[in-house]
Amino acid sequence: MITIALPKGALLKDTIELFSNLGLDFSAFLDKSNRQLQISDPTNTARALLVRAQDVPVYVEYGQAQLGVVGYDVLREKKPDVANLVDLKFGYCRLSVAVPKSSPYKRSVELPPHGRVASKFVNCAKDHFDSIDLPVEIVPLSGSVELGPITGMSEAIVDLVSTGKTLKENGLIETDILYESSARLIAHPLSYRLNRDNINELVAKLKSINY
Amino acid sequence: MITIALPKGALLKDTIELFSNLGLDFSAFLDKSNRQLQISDPTNTARALLVRAQDVPVYVEYGQAQLGVVGYDVLREKKPDVANLVDLKFGYCRLSVAVPKSSPYKRSVELPPHGRVASKFVNCAKDHFDSIDLPVEIVPLSGSVELGPITGMSEAIVDLVSTGKTLKENGLIETDILYESSARLIAHPLSYRLNRDNINELVAKLKSINY
Repeated sequence: MITIALPKGALLKDTIELFSNLGLDFSAFLDKSNRQLQISDPTNTARALLVRAQDVPVYVEYGQAQLGVVGYDVLREKKPDVANLVDLKFGYCRLSVAVPKSSPYKRSVELPPHGRVASKFVNCAKDHFDSIDLPVEIVPLSGSVELGPITGMSEAIVDLVSTGKTLKENGLIETDILYESSARLIAHPLSYRLNRDNINELVAKLKSINY
Repeated sequence: MITIALPKGALLKDTIELFSNLGLDFSAFLDKSNRQLQISDPTNTARALLVRAQDVPVYVEYGQAQLGVVGYDVLREKKPDVANLVDLKFGYCRLSVAVPKSSPYKRSVELPPHGRVASKFVNCAKDHFDSIDLPVEIVPLSGSVELGPITGMSEAIVDLVSTGKTLKENGLIETDILYESSARLIAHPLSYRLNRDNINELVAKLKSINY
């Protein structure tokens, strides 16, 4: 039986809807009282694992799941060894640099050398500042990155922006967009190549829905 | 004004009670409708930041907060450059190795060489297996670590255990305790040494409450 890793959080609802179009019903995961992390669809065609978004590529990389759904941002940050097969065209957001509205710096190239940038995306942030040849210190935070500039710990942040509401509420403005992100279908490379459990058919169906 | 970094989550309630014993009221953070991440106590004596537990040492290390409260487990895992001043004697838990009940391995030394161990505490897990000279592959997960053995991805896990309920619900048993953890008062080393904002007095009061 094919196993699919589904991401908890913002992408879950659209992901479950996507698979319901293929006749795979994992809606039990949307029930707030659900405590199970592993279910089969009622037709016993596929199994789903409910894991944190950033753990989806881990389960796929180790072959515990043949397919997974995860944001492009996670793939860019973690660079897992998985096949990025289909842009699922939901979960749109962007990874951006932002500074306080009152900041004298209007673009990331203007930031002072050896300044500080707070981010959950330490690798993506480092790649960006390396690409513009600006040495900065990345302060690794795991949440509420907007507190970095508010407390004076950092000049800027690198964070995901979807509506821009959080930035606005915290007096921050975007200066640069590093990349756009959306949900992606990923696969265990070997399972995909060997067409284990006929996953190619499932992937083809998902592609046809999305194009 | 002194700034104190408080951890979101399991330790928050006890932490706020602790500071209320010193006349510092940060109970606004317990209000579910609160969206602020930074407040002053009503007497304007101290400021508090509400951050993720693992970010507490970051704010203290960078001097954005002079004091912080965090679990010993975070200090062991991240090894931040902060002073570990007082055992606050709440938030007790332990970092343990656990295996499925049906596992043939009853202690971590019996695990097969080059087996897999899933954990959020990759450094602590590595330190443990290094100390018993057993080469294992640590699979880094960010949540629901118990899924590692359930899906067959790993032979064992290294995770925090408090009541043991999660292990039991997932058919896992503890084999080794790596260390016991509890909440700690940490300080920015330089602020503490220079007694900035008279923090030594506050630390002495917290110690007197706890001994």
